[in-house]
Amino acid sequence: MSTIALPTYEDVQAAARRIEGHAHRTPVMTSRTVNEAFEADVFFKCENLQRMGAFKFRGAFNALSKFSEAQRKAGVVAFSSGNHAQAVALSARLLGIPATILMPLDAPAAKMDATRGYGGRVVTYDRYTEDREQIGQDLAREHGLTLIPPYDHEDVIAGQGTAVKELFEEAGELDALFVPLGGGGLLSGSALSTRALAPGCKLYGVEPEAGNDGQRSFRSGEIVHIDTPQTIADGAQTQHLGLLTFAIIRRDVDDILTARDEELTACMRFLAERMKLVVEPTGCLGFAAARSMKQQLRGKRIGVLVSGGNVDIDRFGALMRNA
Amino acid sequence: MSTIALPTYEDVQAAARRIEGHAHRTPVMTSRTVNEAFEADVFFKCENLQRMGAFKFRGAFNALSKFSEAQRKAGVVAFSSGNHAQAVALSARLLGIPATILMPLDAPAAKMDATRGYGGRVVTYDRYTEDREQIGQDLAREHGLTLIPPYDHEDVIAGQGTAVKELFEEAGELDALFVPLGGGGLLSGSALSTRALAPGCKLYGVEPEAGNDGQRSFRSGEIVHIDTPQTIADGAQTQHLGLLTFAIIRRDVDDILTARDEELTACMRFLAERMKLVVEPTGCLGFAAARSMKQQLRGKRIGVLVSGGNVDIDRFGALMRNA
Repeated sequence: MSTIALPTYEDVQAAARRIEGHAHRTPVMTSRTVNEAFEADVFFKCENLQRMGAFKFRGAFNALSKFSEAQRKAGVVAFSSGNHAQAVALSARLLGIPATILMPLDAPAAKMDATRGYGGRVVTYDRYTEDREQIGQDLAREHGLTLIPPYDHEDVIAGQGTAVKELFEEAGELDALFVPLGGGGLLSGSALSTRALAPGCKLYGVEPEAGNDGQRSFRSGEIVHIDTPQTIADGAQTQHLGLLTFAIIRRDVDDILTARDEELTACMRFLAERMKLVVEPTGCLGFAAARSMKQQLRGKRIGVLVSGGNVDIDRFGALMRNA
Repeated sequence: MSTIALPTYEDVQAAARRIEGHAHRTPVMTSRTVNEAFEADVFFKCENLQRMGAFKFRGAFNALSKFSEAQRKAGVVAFSSGNHAQAVALSARLLGIPATILMPLDAPAAKMDATRGYGGRVVTYDRYTEDREQIGQDLAREHGLTLIPPYDHEDVIAGQGTAVKELFEEAGELDALFVPLGGGGLLSGSALSTRALAPGCKLYGVEPEAGNDGQRSFRSGEIVHIDTPQTIADGAQTQHLGLLTFAIIRRDVDDILTARDEELTACMRFLAERMKLVVEPTGCLGFAAARSMKQQLRGKRIGVLVSGGNVDIDRFGALMRNA
């Protein structure tokens, strides 16, 4: 295995300085109902209240603010049907950088509109016949654009790590921390902050049960690739971890857990009813795993990262009806 | 007109000391999307994130913490089908006071369960044939209980005033402030804080258009009584203001505005989609009125009190489908 340079906590600290005043320092919320149910102290880091509704803004803004003058002029390209698209589009607008976002032809109109609303130029592709990574690389090469991938990039990882840095600064020491896992940008960034600020804290990544490639990779020591999993957690439908994210996760994370879709909808309902928060299915992964480990967590101080709140409100209502 | 002793800002300050450490100091949230739409700075005081989901906890806890030893032993009685019931039940539990809550026979099971969950003894009555005020007074007299009405009580008013006190402390000076209006406890308490901390700030009460008794009372100078209005804003279906609340509102408030149900559902949708907050229809009154005055508010600093988030999640979904 050849060595690769991994980002460090110093990169997270630098990212924190870059995003300050641009990203929200999101609230850390507590609920006495939750604490009574857990017989523990639970701290929710509410990235659903981040700009554009998810933690993704942190990594995108950090990456784009490091662009050289030439890169800024030429522009950025990103591919995503979800939060990363909006994060890059918004960051680019704030920094005066032209943004091209590759989205599948059949992406929800609302998401395309949101991306355009943030000033991004949307280029569509057929996700059944075309390869978005190839199109992105072609666009980058032809027009001199800089491609910012959704998770396997050191500046993206460092930016995502700022959320957990803020959580430790506000909540103090924790015994266990639960973080949603898709491609691993958030989890690996969180790992950098956790190992620097709370070396003894157990750190768990949580992914949908239907797409447990991360768990299998973590346990086997090799990056496992899977087909796009069927799950309501659309932010965690990634098919594999990245090289950088896997290396950090393997080194710094204690275990990878999974949650079933019905646990996610139960958590969405609970967070809406009791904490008055709109959280997307992916955003509930950490809380769902913590709930199923409740016995072991008694008397502890627990962090739960709520990663985002971008769920179509009509879909939200429909999920609640079946929860 | 005989003179009545009205609570003052000193009472609000004393209430703030009593509730400290028991009530949440709720966050003041901002949204760049809202600020861009308004071309103004809008500060949302999020009482939907208060304990038991609404500002009502402030007033109830303040009132109950002033009980004498004898009153504590005998207990408290309250009548309410909504947030006041839960606020009294929870405050009583925290203070070790037995609570009896009068609720209509046909109150939603969820609300009865919530009240019982907070330790309250629920006594039901038939709202078509029985008079709850009479039953409450009878219970109070027979068993020596202290009756805490939902709004027309000086300690309740002073407690509710603490929310706006916190808003000014955090947001600084404001040019205009929009507060939901039902029986007037929140608005009159807010008026005490506003006149003490920001004498030049315009203060508006906002009630449902279908139940504009407050507006008519304010403009005519006499308390107008109406039938229970048909509106989705179930927290503002009061039939008349109180003697105390009316006197303060008449003296200190700049105007009473109204909002239609469809404006409330549009605001609920906006707050859920863009700010990831679950807000009950009544809680949207202030924001709805501010939106319809947008032209006049350009360039100003505006406060919006979001009063509560206690809406059944299935009803929430249904309201969103029709918004």
